[in-house]
Amino acid sequence: MRASFYEGARTFRTGSQPMPVPGPDEALLRVRRVGICGTDLHIFQGHLDHRVPKGGVIGHETFAEVVQAPPGSGVRAGDRVVVEPVTFCGRCRACEMGATYLCYGLKVLGVDLPGGMREYWAVPVARLLKVPDTLGDDQAAMIEPLAVAVHDVRRAQTQPGDTALVLGGGPIGALIAMVARHRGARVVVAEVNPYRVGLLEDLGLETVGPDVDLTRFVQAWTEGNGVDVAYEVTGNPAAARLMTDVVRVWGTISVVAIHAEPVPVNLYQMFARELTMHGSRLYSREDWEEAIRLAASQAVTVAPLVSRKIPLEDLQQGMEHVLAGGAVMKVLVDLTA
Amino acid sequence: MRASFYEGARTFRTGSQPMPVPGPDEALLRVRRVGICGTDLHIFQGHLDHRVPKGGVIGHETFAEVVQAPPGSGVRAGDRVVVEPVTFCGRCRACEMGATYLCYGLKVLGVDLPGGMREYWAVPVARLLKVPDTLGDDQAAMIEPLAVAVHDVRRAQTQPGDTALVLGGGPIGALIAMVARHRGARVVVAEVNPYRVGLLEDLGLETVGPDVDLTRFVQAWTEGNGVDVAYEVTGNPAAARLMTDVVRVWGTISVVAIHAEPVPVNLYQMFARELTMHGSRLYSREDWEEAIRLAASQAVTVAPLVSRKIPLEDLQQGMEHVLAGGAVMKVLVDLTA
Repeated sequence: MRASFYEGARTFRTGSQPMPVPGPDEALLRVRRVGICGTDLHIFQGHLDHRVPKGGVIGHETFAEVVQAPPGSGVRAGDRVVVEPVTFCGRCRACEMGATYLCYGLKVLGVDLPGGMREYWAVPVARLLKVPDTLGDDQAAMIEPLAVAVHDVRRAQTQPGDTALVLGGGPIGALIAMVARHRGARVVVAEVNPYRVGLLEDLGLETVGPDVDLTRFVQAWTEGNGVDVAYEVTGNPAAARLMTDVVRVWGTISVVAIHAEPVPVNLYQMFARELTMHGSRLYSREDWEEAIRLAASQAVTVAPLVSRKIPLEDLQQGMEHVLAGGAVMKVLVDLTA
Repeated sequence: MRASFYEGARTFRTGSQPMPVPGPDEALLRVRRVGICGTDLHIFQGHLDHRVPKGGVIGHETFAEVVQAPPGSGVRAGDRVVVEPVTFCGRCRACEMGATYLCYGLKVLGVDLPGGMREYWAVPVARLLKVPDTLGDDQAAMIEPLAVAVHDVRRAQTQPGDTALVLGGGPIGALIAMVARHRGARVVVAEVNPYRVGLLEDLGLETVGPDVDLTRFVQAWTEGNGVDVAYEVTGNPAAARLMTDVVRVWGTISVVAIHAEPVPVNLYQMFARELTMHGSRLYSREDWEEAIRLAASQAVTVAPLVSRKIPLEDLQQGMEHVLAGGAVMKVLVDLTA
């Protein structure tokens, strides 16, 4: 069977691998779609070589069809499933608190352990969630990033009528905006890429572009108060510098993006207006279940975010395409192609 | 009557001022003690010239005796009182939320408006809290910083058995440590000044000095988890750089210190362990009431923190003394001297 192997910075090689043999608690999956995520771009650039081995198989946004599953496992051949790509110890302080996705021994499938960029994959049944038939393959492949967005909005405790500023309108920013809007928030997305701005506006989202002074915009929008929540989804130091200026007294900053290096943050603003900032990383089981509900009910429309599909053989070019920016949003690897 | 006037950076002048005439809702106070605070040091160095006018009277940690009060106001001549040194509009978004001490039009007495560094002061009765006779004058002068510490520990939601690391063992750090200990937390204070370390240990507080690698210390102390809460009370960029490294998954960082400039913060750690960071600035009325209870019951012993008392005429030298560091903790201006 075919698989794509990470061979070091900027290099993927498609090759063959023996068919996986599922363990007693595992299902054998036929992978159909795998999304390319920001973390994958970090891997591609060699930033995560301390976690991803040479020859490793990446991919953690996986939609698949079950080929074979243990009897009585609740999953059967033909089921359409997504994969919650985490393994945890269940015993550490984080797991005890219920933060299994932040386990001190956390391993992410597709990063620390082999992932979904291959035709067949054996995965513990406990890590599978069924997807209704009403959701198309492309939509189902968006459940993982949607679960991230659901988690982010839940942690920020968004209430109806809240104002939310999303800094960065890539796939996660767009999904956060749609989930927050569904929760009743008034949402604006700050984005510089004209293609993405167009796509966001097609989704009915309000945007502000690079020609606008964001702090002034927020002052005018919120009558001088600042927004209730700002989501930092850019990973750009300029956004980290600005995020404390746009939030109201007692407001919330959600750090969703990866900032590889420490960046200047205005702690005086944190102090003076008693802001709360929290990181928001992955998801719990309930976030996945909610993501499936939101996508299936069309409360969040995920399909328009898919800007391109590529065959497995084109993974390296696909990564370069996403890195280059421009007319790109979510790229999916289509394993059925 | 005597008063001390701020004449610009590094200069205070003691002079005379007409006796204040209290308005209909005001009490006339005979000031007895005023503490020198970190904010006062910023004023002294000219950092707050945009808020403090030349010729202004500073001082916001005030203990006084009532000379005259409106009939039926609940306060009478002879009452011993502390002054909650804030004025707020009562109508803005912050006030509506109950964050009157973060009012968008907040004026702090002793910073934006005249304060307590004078013999007599007319203050709105609504801003006074009575202090029991069992509390000595010096102890009563410590109620304001104790209210800050009560507020900080309350916002951090410290629970019995929690581990708390206090970065910086000055007056506020020491008070936070004692309040957190009273709430049942296990507390360690990181402090570099040997005089302060000695004083903290005399109060029964555990300390770590500059010869210890704090991250390793915390790892060993918490069995690799990190502390539940870290309080940043130094205002030092090195502490801001370190604070994200010492907190457990889902743990809390409380930013109490003033960082005048944006400083590098490890947002990756905020993200990876879903930390929460919040600023903690002043206090609500309940924090004051709790501070008076804690001091009066000796649950928190504030008197040992007073390292020197000076007459009003020596305010400038007192400021230089505090700035110089060394054998100094809390300096009080004694208006009865």
